[in-house]
Amino acid sequence: MPQGSGHVLALCGGIGGAKLALGLSRAVAPDQLTILVNTGDDFVHLGLAISPDIDTVLYTLSGLADPVRGWGVRDETWNFMAALGGLGGETWFQLGDRDLATHVERTRRLAAGESLAAVTEGFRRAWGIGPRVLPMSDDPVRTRVETAAGWLDFQDYFVRRRCEPAVTGLDFAGAEAADPSDAALTLLASPELRAVVICPSNPYLSIDPLLAMPGLRRALAACPAPVVVVSPIVGGAAVKGPTAKMMGELGIEVSVASVARHYEGLIDALVVDAADRDQHVPPGLDVVVTQTVMRTLEDRVNLAKAVLAAADRIGGSRRRSE
Amino acid sequence: MPQGSGHVLALCGGIGGAKLALGLSRAVAPDQLTILVNTGDDFVHLGLAISPDIDTVLYTLSGLADPVRGWGVRDETWNFMAALGGLGGETWFQLGDRDLATHVERTRRLAAGESLAAVTEGFRRAWGIGPRVLPMSDDPVRTRVETAAGWLDFQDYFVRRRCEPAVTGLDFAGAEAADPSDAALTLLASPELRAVVICPSNPYLSIDPLLAMPGLRRALAACPAPVVVVSPIVGGAAVKGPTAKMMGELGIEVSVASVARHYEGLIDALVVDAADRDQHVPPGLDVVVTQTVMRTLEDRVNLAKAVLAAADRIGGSRRRSE
Repeated sequence: MPQGSGHVLALCGGIGGAKLALGLSRAVAPDQLTILVNTGDDFVHLGLAISPDIDTVLYTLSGLADPVRGWGVRDETWNFMAALGGLGGETWFQLGDRDLATHVERTRRLAAGESLAAVTEGFRRAWGIGPRVLPMSDDPVRTRVETAAGWLDFQDYFVRRRCEPAVTGLDFAGAEAADPSDAALTLLASPELRAVVICPSNPYLSIDPLLAMPGLRRALAACPAPVVVVSPIVGGAAVKGPTAKMMGELGIEVSVASVARHYEGLIDALVVDAADRDQHVPPGLDVVVTQTVMRTLEDRVNLAKAVLAAADRIGGSRRRSE
Repeated sequence: MPQGSGHVLALCGGIGGAKLALGLSRAVAPDQLTILVNTGDDFVHLGLAISPDIDTVLYTLSGLADPVRGWGVRDETWNFMAALGGLGGETWFQLGDRDLATHVERTRRLAAGESLAAVTEGFRRAWGIGPRVLPMSDDPVRTRVETAAGWLDFQDYFVRRRCEPAVTGLDFAGAEAADPSDAALTLLASPELRAVVICPSNPYLSIDPLLAMPGLRRALAACPAPVVVVSPIVGGAAVKGPTAKMMGELGIEVSVASVARHYEGLIDALVVDAADRDQHVPPGLDVVVTQTVMRTLEDRVNLAKAVLAAADRIGGSRRRSE
């Protein structure tokens, strides 16, 4: 396989991960990118099957995403929520009128016997998205958060309680028994795989649900292609979301070194921001310093290119040493 | 019971019936009116439990109804439908963004174990509606239409095919086994009942599902209060909808006489429009001539008052002859 060719597999969660996934989609050919998405945040709400991270990735790649909020769709209206509130219904999880079609149609198709992968593939095609988007599993894996208030369902912790309860533990119910995406396992074993990119998503909430599936963790550890992680920690803080707060609560130092240790044995390179260039990381790990904060589309594409360049360097030196 | 007092029970279907129900709600005290509504049109669509006639009655009585269309809610938006269409979903049954909250919340409550009557009561209270609104049954009754194209589900015939196939028969699946509303049966046997009003709904599609429940039909036939029907046929045509077309297809003359014969043995009086004053009806039936076409709120209230006056005359003469 010539350097700079082959398939790229990205592992990602929601908003932060989707930004890099979008960058990757502009840096490689559409048929050379597969995005494997966390489903630990999935839940059933108002009887609807909701897959927040899959939707964020699909909306981001299709251009449907709201550019300000980062979640949901642009030009959204909220008349359903207003009417539901008028009926005394549950309104803590915001569902826009357009977004709702995604959940209603997904729920309908799942009830008709389609797999989550098939539903996601149907949405991808309907929205004209080039890269393949895979749920990490068709089986339910449910992230649960242990707090002083007891074990909470993820969305209860994340949305309803706004990440306020201190986290003492995490569980990914169903992960042990869940079958990881077949297509992802096939890719991970393929000699045509150019790189695995772990997006700058929350390692504990967004990537660990994937790694909690023993088959996927094994396949990643055995993967012949370079595995590159982009640190979601920049200058001792999280770019977005509850990552840093949660790390503190779990007694983990908020640093790129902690991110590196978290993925130890699975990754070949760590991409960090210039702010973290002097951080110590475990030996044997390539460290690439570049701008990791993505504000513009150009930032996303540039980061994607830097990540792929790092992977290609590792892949090239492996081939030379063979 | 003094004349002009007591409870009024209205039997009705959708748009035409809801108009008179609204008139009745302005003609009697809120706690003296109960509206028993057809559920034969109910269906599950996109996984949502939809009760078109109940919703039309609730929207009409609450003032939420769209004043032009007659169905759905005012100030409606259609972004859900547009997005569903973008996903290749089924868009033949129009669901507005606000209206959708009704179906999602009903579906959620039914799945949680509430009866349709309890859900309807919850919506009635949330929307500040005075009169009681009862589904004809908590058990499923499904109107099916026999056509040259075979047996069709009601909404398939009514909405998707716009009543185009010629009707050769009707069936109300589940009606034999369905338990009619307890509250309606209690009212029908009550000496406090002032009148039963059969609204100008389609007798074959909207009222027959109620009468197809043997217990309700028996209770209506044995009811001590006057039963008054308002003809949905005016001048040999239907005021609205497929009533006349369907009567023709079923070989029934499109006339108030046919309406009278249809309800023979169940009703005491027939309210007809001036256009039909010379029509022959079965002997023994009071015929009241008034304006039955309801364009304004005043028309609705005036018709309600005329219907109640007819009932009170019959009730009064019965009491005198006792």
